[in-house]
Amino acid sequence: MPDIQPASNASCPRATSRERNTAVRITDCLTIGDGDLTVIAGPCAVEGHAMLLRTARAVQSAGAIMLRGGVFKPRTSPYSFRGLGAEALEMLAAARAETGLAIVCEVMDASQLPALIDVVDVLQIGARNMQNYTLLTAAGECGVPVLLKRGMSATIGEFLLAAEYVLAHGNPNVILCERGIRTFETATRNTLDVAAVPVLKKETYLPVLVDPSHAGGRADLVLPLSLAAVAAGADGLLIEVHPDPATALSDGPQSLTFDAFDDLMARVKPLAYLCGRPVATATRGQRQRRPRRTGATAMPA
Amino acid sequence: MPDIQPASNASCPRATSRERNTAVRITDCLTIGDGDLTVIAGPCAVEGHAMLLRTARAVQSAGAIMLRGGVFKPRTSPYSFRGLGAEALEMLAAARAETGLAIVCEVMDASQLPALIDVVDVLQIGARNMQNYTLLTAAGECGVPVLLKRGMSATIGEFLLAAEYVLAHGNPNVILCERGIRTFETATRNTLDVAAVPVLKKETYLPVLVDPSHAGGRADLVLPLSLAAVAAGADGLLIEVHPDPATALSDGPQSLTFDAFDDLMARVKPLAYLCGRPVATATRGQRQRRPRRTGATAMPA
Amino acid sequence: MPDIQPASNASCPRATSRERNTAVRITDCLTIGDGDLTVIAGPCAVEGHAMLLRTARAVQSAGAIMLRGGVFKPRTSPYSFRGLGAEALEMLAAARAETGLAIVCEVMDASQLPALIDVVDVLQIGARNMQNYTLLTAAGECGVPVLLKRGMSATIGEFLLAAEYVLAHGNPNVILCERGIRTFETATRNTLDVAAVPVLKKETYLPVLVDPSHAGGRADLVLPLSLAAVAAGADGLLIEVHPDPATALSDGPQSLTFDAFDDLMARVKPLAYLCGRPVATATRGQRQRRPRRTGATAMPA
Amino acid sequence: MPDIQPASNASCPRATSRERNTAVRITDCLTIGDGDLTVIAGPCAVEGHAMLLRTARAVQSAGAIMLRGGVFKPRTSPYSFRGLGAEALEMLAAARAETGLAIVCEVMDASQLPALIDVVDVLQIGARNMQNYTLLTAAGECGVPVLLKRGMSATIGEFLLAAEYVLAHGNPNVILCERGIRTFETATRNTLDVAAVPVLKKETYLPVLVDPSHAGGRADLVLPLSLAAVAAGADGLLIEVHPDPATALSDGPQSLTFDAFDDLMARVKPLAYLCGRPVATATRGQRQRRPRRTGATAMPA
Repeated sequence: MPDIQPASNASCPRATSRERNTAVRITDCLTIGDGDLTVIAGPCAVEGHAMLLRTARAVQSAGAIMLRGGVFKPRTSPYSFRGLGAEALEMLAAARAETGLAIVCEVMDASQLPALIDVVDVLQIGARNMQNYTLLTAAGECGVPVLLKRGMSATIGEFLLAAEYVLAHGNPNVILCERGIRTFETATRNTLDVAAVPVLKKETYLPVLVDPSHAGGRADLVLPLSLAAVAAGADGLLIEVHPDPATALSDGPQSLTFDAFDDLMARVKPLAYLCGRPVATATRGQRQRRPRRTGATAMPA
Repeated sequence: MPDIQPASNASCPRATSRERNTAVRITDCLTIGDGDLTVIAGPCAVEGHAMLLRTARAVQSAGAIMLRGGVFKPRTSPYSFRGLGAEALEMLAAARAETGLAIVCEVMDASQLPALIDVVDVLQIGARNMQNYTLLTAAGECGVPVLLKRGMSATIGEFLLAAEYVLAHGNPNVILCERGIRTFETATRNTLDVAAVPVLKKETYLPVLVDPSHAGGRADLVLPLSLAAVAAGADGLLIEVHPDPATALSDGPQSLTFDAFDDLMARVKPLAYLCGRPVATATRGQRQRRPRRTGATAMPA
Repeated sequence: MPDIQPASNASCPRATSRERNTAVRITDCLTIGDGDLTVIAGPCAVEGHAMLLRTARAVQSAGAIMLRGGVFKPRTSPYSFRGLGAEALEMLAAARAETGLAIVCEVMDASQLPALIDVVDVLQIGARNMQNYTLLTAAGECGVPVLLKRGMSATIGEFLLAAEYVLAHGNPNVILCERGIRTFETATRNTLDVAAVPVLKKETYLPVLVDPSHAGGRADLVLPLSLAAVAAGADGLLIEVHPDPATALSDGPQSLTFDAFDDLMARVKPLAYLCGRPVATATRGQRQRRPRRTGATAMPA
Repeated sequence: MPDIQPASNASCPRATSRERNTAVRITDCLTIGDGDLTVIAGPCAVEGHAMLLRTARAVQSAGAIMLRGGVFKPRTSPYSFRGLGAEALEMLAAARAETGLAIVCEVMDASQLPALIDVVDVLQIGARNMQNYTLLTAAGECGVPVLLKRGMSATIGEFLLAAEYVLAHGNPNVILCERGIRTFETATRNTLDVAAVPVLKKETYLPVLVDPSHAGGRADLVLPLSLAAVAAGADGLLIEVHPDPATALSDGPQSLTFDAFDDLMARVKPLAYLCGRPVATATRGQRQRRPRRTGATAMPA
């Protein structure tokens, strides 16, 4: 029988290390977890160039600093809309160039990484893939910041061990995201485990975001859940916004209109300020994405 | 076979009625659900006269307007401390007389009602008894305000139907309390379903409190969960405070020290103010308990 | 502060004691947990004399040895049918006299005990009341055999501690009943935790029944769940049968017709025999209920 | 915006189709779901050639007809043993050649498919990957029989839609496997949802296996859960067996010794026979794996 040893990871940060509060640098002028509240917004899926750009401008105007938008969509049914793929990536790149917003986009499989890392600033790993170890490993090796969502029935301990996969493969830039867990309650799509925010903040140095859109699954709950998340200490919010939720190809019932997102930001800003975590705003100047990892990349200073 | 008809309830408010936002009047100068934030605090169980009075004064000084304290304790094991019973009721009455704080106390069984309603201002029905229909019916008939906790695996729909038992038996003074639900997560004692607050506020006219002590089961989580509850729109908080949590006869790990409760109130007050729901303060003058129901009691004007 | 001590229980059996396999004697000729499989069947609620007697004769003919039938029904909504009360108790007594079947009937509140213990052979404490400690205590003191159902979100540990309440108050005649737990799955009313059967059999000396009717909530699942329960080692089954499930006042969707119950018994009998736990049959002669407890009642030899 | 249409799937069987009971042919002389009970056994992970061969012979001698053994192991922690990889595949091939047992082996990622499909007869997709749509799609396209495990918090509906991904990509050879779901209960690793067996058998034509090892997570529960599964109508069992569970590199606490597996088979055989689903035995002659899919493969006649 062969010699079996865990890979050496002596020099790697651990999710459960708390030596310092480590922010994740996304671009020259954008960092998550540095004490400000990062608001990320955009459509569930990129459905076209015009809708994406309109949404990007609307959420930027309201105060979002990053744009989300799905290109490859994991869907429970094989007959649901599964994203526009490569074509949508070009739309994201164009929206990035036109607005300066940094881009968050989900990766479903390691084979999609090469195409994505040329365009996106943050790779999202979704709840269904939280224990897709091949993907976690590849995301660890590529070095691009990773927004890791909690699995729908993952304990906090399992969530941290999933983050550990990324860290153990050399990528310290992990952002955690609570997005609701599966319970018996049916009034909401999932149950937002708001206590996960302070628990994660205690047990790890990683930034912690909350996705109130998937947690509640209802547009009318996005505002109160956002406020609760900020009050509980979240480092940011990930919110679905669509020009016309009624016709969205996915997640319409939980997507906000532009007006609703404006209202939400008007409520979130003073709360975030009061909580000592003001909403992050963009600094001027051309944004540069953080240099890609070339092997020995250290953690951000 | 006999004639089977549901009891007539034509004149009774329904939990799911939303005709008006109905506050529950507790005393001449204390109302829950009128737009202010009601803070209720005190020990899990009344353990003695001195500890109760010290705690009452400490929480009152920090801004609590009502005192909680268990007399009959439902305990998972028959060998755990189950409360001091009638003796503790006298201690509660004394604390009420000395501090003017209104009293919340749990009733476990209809047979305890006569003794309790002479002393307490609000009857608490605990999570384990949320579907104890004999108790709900008796609490409905007695007319005293009822603080009804959500069962640990009750859906929001079942919670409202339990409230309906109290309402249908003639008592409109029901206050709902979210206290965490049972899930697979083990980092916390229960999972605070913070979304239940806005959902309940939408589906019913009843005031909605949150118990962050039982929800998290950890003293270090009481503050962030309290803030989250207030931000999500709760009408009040129910918090366990003990002079020396390490020696508490029950719920020590989730009880706050006086200092921790002071700190919590210092954080809650500005947040509650910002959220348009300032912490309720006592008005001057002798408090009179609301007149007990005598049959035709209308809802509070 | 007063002296606080757990009640002395030195001479009381514990649920977790495993010194011997203790069967619970119900009548002179009926014992549960003695190695045979006890089948209990009948309507959810007693709806009338004729329907009860017809059902009693049908289930007896198919092989059931005890009759179930609710008199006071715990219902989630106060506007649902809640049982015929005292009138139904007389119908149960008549059915008992006419068929010789022993009677299982739910008690919802300690105040109902005096009326019930004159008629029934086994007191059922339902899932909603598993932690109604006043009721558990009263059931412990009355000495009548208790069929205790697992709470819908009770752990096995909590289930055993609830049984301990009955035992600690002097009543060793406790029969446990797994009836499904609450999970996220919606295809079934509850999720039958079939593993609870062998776990309970390992951790306690008490008999363990399974209620496949409430576990699945679907008539079409009663047969496979019954077979699974027997194969897993259950000491008995508790099954809802109704002359016309489509018109039942409660639990119609999970009630079996007489024919379906016949078919079930035809499948259960050979399986139970193969598993070394043949279906119990009544011995001849007049049945006498076991003498009621008069203080010093020993456990069955 | 591009034209968005679900892929045409007119000619594809659906998981929810019930036109016929479709068995999945594995080799010339081995079919799953044809009315017999298929027993698959072996170690959690292939740890070496000798241990694998010993185990293969032991389980074959006791009546298993297929060998399981992990090569790539999904592990919650990145520091746990993750399988021997390609080397273990050779050991599986050798065990197959020496014993004639067909091989079930987990695939964690589409990139592992080419190596696996040369060796294994059935590809297992694990609970963590039940919604890894890239993998499901690739498994659908490769045509090799797929044993799909239910996700740990997947509803039965989601489970069937995951199967639909494989079917919709042209592979009708899907075998479902219930392996326990995540609940609040901590006495067992997961909660075996035994009702899922009859529900799945009603809603789909696919064979349904049960994995009692992962469901309970305890060696002492494998026997009762196996018996319950057979009684509930399962088409087969997937059981972990190890020469020395105490030293197993993974899943030791739930692995059976050879003797315990012998005892289990001695109990399963008569029960399966009684249930009209006798344990499948190998027919004589050289086994040929089923021809690999070359595009137009029809379903087995």
